[in-house]
Amino acid sequence: MQMEERGKIARDAGILLAATNGEMRNEGLKAIAKALEANQDAIIAANQTDMKRSQDENLGAPLLKRLTFDAVKINDVIQGIYSLMELTDPLGATKLSTQLDEGLDLYKVTCPIGVIGVIFESRPDAFVQISTLCLKSGNSVLLKGGREALETNRILAKIIHDATVSVGLPVNWIQNLETREDVTAMLALDQYIDLIIPRGSNSFVKYIMTHSNIPVMGHADGICHIYVHDDADLTQAIDIIVDSKTQYVAACNTLETLLVNENIAQKLLPALKTALDAKNVQLKGDTATQAIIPVEPATEEDWKTEYLDYILSIRIVPDLNTAITHINTYGSGHTDVILTTAEAMAKTFMTLVDSAGVFWNCSTRFSDGFRFGFGAEVGISTSKLHARGPVGLDGLLSYKYKLLGHGQLVADYASGKSQFTHVTQNTNCPI
Amino acid sequence: MQMEERGKIARDAGILLAATNGEMRNEGLKAIAKALEANQDAIIAANQTDMKRSQDENLGAPLLKRLTFDAVKINDVIQGIYSLMELTDPLGATKLSTQLDEGLDLYKVTCPIGVIGVIFESRPDAFVQISTLCLKSGNSVLLKGGREALETNRILAKIIHDATVSVGLPVNWIQNLETREDVTAMLALDQYIDLIIPRGSNSFVKYIMTHSNIPVMGHADGICHIYVHDDADLTQAIDIIVDSKTQYVAACNTLETLLVNENIAQKLLPALKTALDAKNVQLKGDTATQAIIPVEPATEEDWKTEYLDYILSIRIVPDLNTAITHINTYGSGHTDVILTTAEAMAKTFMTLVDSAGVFWNCSTRFSDGFRFGFGAEVGISTSKLHARGPVGLDGLLSYKYKLLGHGQLVADYASGKSQFTHVTQNTNCPI
Repeated sequence: MQMEERGKIARDAGILLAATNGEMRNEGLKAIAKALEANQDAIIAANQTDMKRSQDENLGAPLLKRLTFDAVKINDVIQGIYSLMELTDPLGATKLSTQLDEGLDLYKVTCPIGVIGVIFESRPDAFVQISTLCLKSGNSVLLKGGREALETNRILAKIIHDATVSVGLPVNWIQNLETREDVTAMLALDQYIDLIIPRGSNSFVKYIMTHSNIPVMGHADGICHIYVHDDADLTQAIDIIVDSKTQYVAACNTLETLLVNENIAQKLLPALKTALDAKNVQLKGDTATQAIIPVEPATEEDWKTEYLDYILSIRIVPDLNTAITHINTYGSGHTDVILTTAEAMAKTFMTLVDSAGVFWNCSTRFSDGFRFGFGAEVGISTSKLHARGPVGLDGLLSYKYKLLGHGQLVADYASGKSQFTHVTQNTNCPI
Repeated sequence: MQMEERGKIARDAGILLAATNGEMRNEGLKAIAKALEANQDAIIAANQTDMKRSQDENLGAPLLKRLTFDAVKINDVIQGIYSLMELTDPLGATKLSTQLDEGLDLYKVTCPIGVIGVIFESRPDAFVQISTLCLKSGNSVLLKGGREALETNRILAKIIHDATVSVGLPVNWIQNLETREDVTAMLALDQYIDLIIPRGSNSFVKYIMTHSNIPVMGHADGICHIYVHDDADLTQAIDIIVDSKTQYVAACNTLETLLVNENIAQKLLPALKTALDAKNVQLKGDTATQAIIPVEPATEEDWKTEYLDYILSIRIVPDLNTAITHINTYGSGHTDVILTTAEAMAKTFMTLVDSAGVFWNCSTRFSDGFRFGFGAEVGISTSKLHARGPVGLDGLLSYKYKLLGHGQLVADYASGKSQFTHVTQNTNCPI
């Protein structure tokens, strides 16, 4: 089938999915969980085909590990589906209710976005997580996973589709794409697809953004900072810096640049170096840092770099404002932290730093949908439109305005015959 | 100054503006109102220069009328500023508060988007309305008005800038662009500009969307429908159709296509034709319509056309589902109405029609920020991301996550030493 036709049937399915109630979508989720359990052997066999081919192609060990979809991982995604079922139905929630006039009531009600195109890395568990998030939120989804997981994703798509159709959900709400040509064609389907979510490297996300008119939700970079003010608790500061840099070095919420107030640098840096040496973190620093501890020189390029590795760049700054300007100049608007005992300093930092996450006295690594309590995470957005920061089910919602009248005409309000009351109400939309 | 530099200083001003409190921004609004009043003569003189040049260039009468900025219109925008001052400060509102653990509290807090680029039609009143909405919501703004209003916009920009700077607001938060080259350069400044709002024709909005990586908020089309179900009140139906088509024919929320259930067509159409003839509305219809009343034939192209004129296309449909499919196929997702006495029919229509506004028994023309009670309107969005439908101040907001901790590390939660509590709270962010 041509991609244009696939986009159209995805849209048709999305319209029907938007009209299903939460119980029916939960029935679908349950059917998926049961089908994954029942078909576990076939899924593992398909995954072993992918693993064998990838080993033959000399795929690296970390990627092979991500590609693995065994009984343990299958059980994890099944448990994830049961957790998702417990979340409140995100659709049909009244966000605003206003009486415009007697018998003319306006309601702003949540609804699905429509059709979402997701392009993601090789992990087969992501295939299940993304598709079940879309089902819970009533969105059709076109998924393109990594080439390495071809067989695994193919069988997962069939199992998920068939399980949900068997309980009465619309056909074709989930479709599996298998080629790069399909992705290229999908990026042009702005008449059918409402949102593209690319997951992968920065350059990949930027490529998608510049090659489609469809809105894109993704993060372009994660250059996270910690600024240590001169009144910070030293022991706490070292613990937080070590956690932020080393707890999981390849994540987008990992610390990349440390800014240290010049009044505390002499006390902090030697002890910090000892702690980071123990974790094999390579340090780079500006001239002032080099005068205190032995580090490689940091260049302008370092301030703009997301290392995703055991490397940390350090700059000594004279004051809070210089730290804020550094972050707003070189940062990526992801997550930035101030360590200080002064609430006024924290407040200034959190107001002026233009980032999705502004934290006080804790690790950058808390910037995450699960840790934030969103139950499920679509991704982390560094855009300031629609969704910012860790994105839960909310990021997959739009809304519509329902206006319930009794024959009212605008001409009567224009002439002054009728007047708007504009009374805010606390009622849910009755239909 | 080069556009890149202007983008950078706009961003710097936006950072400072985000940190101002609501009282200070209201002081700025008041200063603008007073300065407009004090400089009324100079504004009118500048406008007369624009009017004179435009008359010499044979600008059409409707455009000349829009260009006029006289004492009455100046007073209107001043009153609009006082109304805007009365609205609650949209910034710093806590939208979500969650205790992640004892002493680790997460707050989702509204903040400005940052820098907004607005490209708009010739009306000078729009210059004042847009810039004051941006100030109220703490956003920097780059405005490019119509070439015809060059002198008027130039003096308005200076008055607004100087009045606000005099009360302590940051310099350069508002900048006036005067050339097409500036607009072209602005569309490339995705590192400094967060949102583009184009106001104008469909083709213009689409041009902007395809020529910038910056998110665009605008509506591409307003092809609005009314579906008359077979149980509709006939007199009410005719009144609503006439209001929707003729109350203001050039607006995007005006009715363009009427869908009539076949069971009511024989009764409705002759009486409707009489009512629309009285308003000089030209009718087009499908074959079934032509069999009942004398109308020009409607083609496939008519279903896709936003006339913005005294023209209405009519199609007779066998049932509700055909009407819904027609709307979802040919509509633009703006505003669509069902006329029926049956709540179940209204519910199905309002759930399945994928539009920003889905109305029951009232005019399409209610789709408007002022009529919805939003106090001020940025525009109407047919996108499903960020803002949909009439957009008030809310559409100019983003949010950030503030996390207030006491030294917490992610490693302790990963190891199981600490557990998340994830308790929803009802508290405002204390800083």
